[in-house]
Amino acid sequence: MKALVQLHDGYSNTATGPNIEDMSPFVALQDVPKPEPGDGQALIKVHMSAVNPSDIHFIKGEYGQPRVKGMPAGFEAVGEVVAGDTPLKGQRVSFFADASGTWAEYAMTDAARLVPCRPDLSEVDAAGQLVNPLTAIAMFDIVKESGADSFVLNAAGSQLGKLMIALGRDHGIKPIAVIRRAEQAAALRDLGAAEVIVTSEDDPLGQAQPIFKSLKPRILLDAVGDQFTSDLFFAMPSHARWVNYGKLSTETPALGQLGQMIFQGKVIEGFWLTRWMKQVDPARIPAAFMEIQERFVSGKWTTDVAGIVPLSEAMEKLPEVLAKPDGKAFIDPRS
Amino acid sequence: MKALVQLHDGYSNTATGPNIEDMSPFVALQDVPKPEPGDGQALIKVHMSAVNPSDIHFIKGEYGQPRVKGMPAGFEAVGEVVAGDTPLKGQRVSFFADASGTWAEYAMTDAARLVPCRPDLSEVDAAGQLVNPLTAIAMFDIVKESGADSFVLNAAGSQLGKLMIALGRDHGIKPIAVIRRAEQAAALRDLGAAEVIVTSEDDPLGQAQPIFKSLKPRILLDAVGDQFTSDLFFAMPSHARWVNYGKLSTETPALGQLGQMIFQGKVIEGFWLTRWMKQVDPARIPAAFMEIQERFVSGKWTTDVAGIVPLSEAMEKLPEVLAKPDGKAFIDPRS
Repeated sequence: MKALVQLHDGYSNTATGPNIEDMSPFVALQDVPKPEPGDGQALIKVHMSAVNPSDIHFIKGEYGQPRVKGMPAGFEAVGEVVAGDTPLKGQRVSFFADASGTWAEYAMTDAARLVPCRPDLSEVDAAGQLVNPLTAIAMFDIVKESGADSFVLNAAGSQLGKLMIALGRDHGIKPIAVIRRAEQAAALRDLGAAEVIVTSEDDPLGQAQPIFKSLKPRILLDAVGDQFTSDLFFAMPSHARWVNYGKLSTETPALGQLGQMIFQGKVIEGFWLTRWMKQVDPARIPAAFMEIQERFVSGKWTTDVAGIVPLSEAMEKLPEVLAKPDGKAFIDPRS
Repeated sequence: MKALVQLHDGYSNTATGPNIEDMSPFVALQDVPKPEPGDGQALIKVHMSAVNPSDIHFIKGEYGQPRVKGMPAGFEAVGEVVAGDTPLKGQRVSFFADASGTWAEYAMTDAARLVPCRPDLSEVDAAGQLVNPLTAIAMFDIVKESGADSFVLNAAGSQLGKLMIALGRDHGIKPIAVIRRAEQAAALRDLGAAEVIVTSEDDPLGQAQPIFKSLKPRILLDAVGDQFTSDLFFAMPSHARWVNYGKLSTETPALGQLGQMIFQGKVIEGFWLTRWMKQVDPARIPAAFMEIQERFVSGKWTTDVAGIVPLSEAMEKLPEVLAKPDGKAFIDPRS
């Protein structure tokens, strides 16, 4: 089968962020043997793979698990189960590949983790229903538990940001959206952002202060990890939690007011979907997928598509699709 | 009565650390009216007041509660209850002053928070039994809950550091002591430190790495808040918690490997005794004081005295006693 195969093992010990201009140092399009499912595994013919920032971190050796040279890259996809230790053969499933990656004609994973798809769920919604939507549901549980009726999120114009804003809108918890480009503001307000802070404008911290004073958010959902995020955290009210889940910035943020950890009970922590899935009540996960599929099918969530790239052309075309300011990139291995 | 009275209200918005060369910008020795206890309050004739870093932070306007101009400074002391709404009149008590400070002939506090002292508890042990010993007991609860059989503490040569090391020794949880001055190392090893990392020597992070690999500590108790502490935290194993409870350094530490919050489940938080006392099971507090007094009387803990300064000479003499490398400073308002 054709696959985008990793060229390196392990970690790179770099921290260059999830941007990419040239794939060729990291992966190559190769013919490799179709994986053969063992006990408890399922083989899936891939229909469409969603490309996430974590995929780019991963191929660059900057993600929380080591690369394996010669193994196809790509974490999530939708496809048809064609073989393996599962009653779901012949069915369309979303899945997270843990044995052979999704940037390939066939991928392999733990059969217990397949997510059957409603027939009315579109291919792009199905391809991307694990990483971003499940992260949004899981992090929104943290927001709800905080008891506040607002929350702060940065990179708010990202796909995940938009999912979070729609969740806030639908649950009456006001999203405070932090974005870099002012031209995204109107669309995010239309979607449901109660407030928008634009970091490229004058004094973004000054924009934030009256908003925080009035709305009293407790949770900061952070995909950026830069100095402004740290400053924003220390401008939040007592008992604020900075929940970092991504690193779009290569800055190393300094803690300007460490004393707030002591006197205001503030906390800095991380969110990783992989850990959440191990720790959460197992019944939460199928319930979350029911909710995710219902939200997409009913139009409460939509997937913005930046481009769908054939597997055979992904080496050249994926970087330019990923560089688009809005929307998500997909790889189609059938074409 | 004579008292060291605060010269400023509120906060200073500076961050200069708990060192002091000159008291005169912050407090003055004055004659002020003896406080009159109201409902639920007790008046105590002060025998001896312990001077802690938090007192110095406080008079400089850098602590978590606002100063009150004209009010005596000083948080903790031992003395005799002479008036108020309490059956403890005539008894010797340790206390934390919340209504009129302890750097004075008389202090006032909530009568419910008086701690009766065993007759065999010495005056210096009694004067300082609240802030440091209760903090040590409370933070050691965090260490025990971590499940690891070692923990890391910096400023390990401080009074609080020595209390923590002795607790580790007596409970079989190995203290990994971080200190600045190599000459403290032998004494801390004698006291019970399993390992000592000296930050003024070559490559302290290199010293720490094999120790962390072998002992796998989960808790970092931090009174310093400098860049080395941040680097040390990121060198610790997965699920490490950086518990900051003091700010001896004026550095603003940068988070060099924020991704560990995500992938290794690390957490940065603060410890404040005031919050702990509100949140803990109320039965824990009298039990802790029984344990604290028993530990001092039996010699499991000792108070190192840097000097006892008469109240009338404290303006001039306290800074030089506080500048001594070892031991604790006290103010005696009877002389």
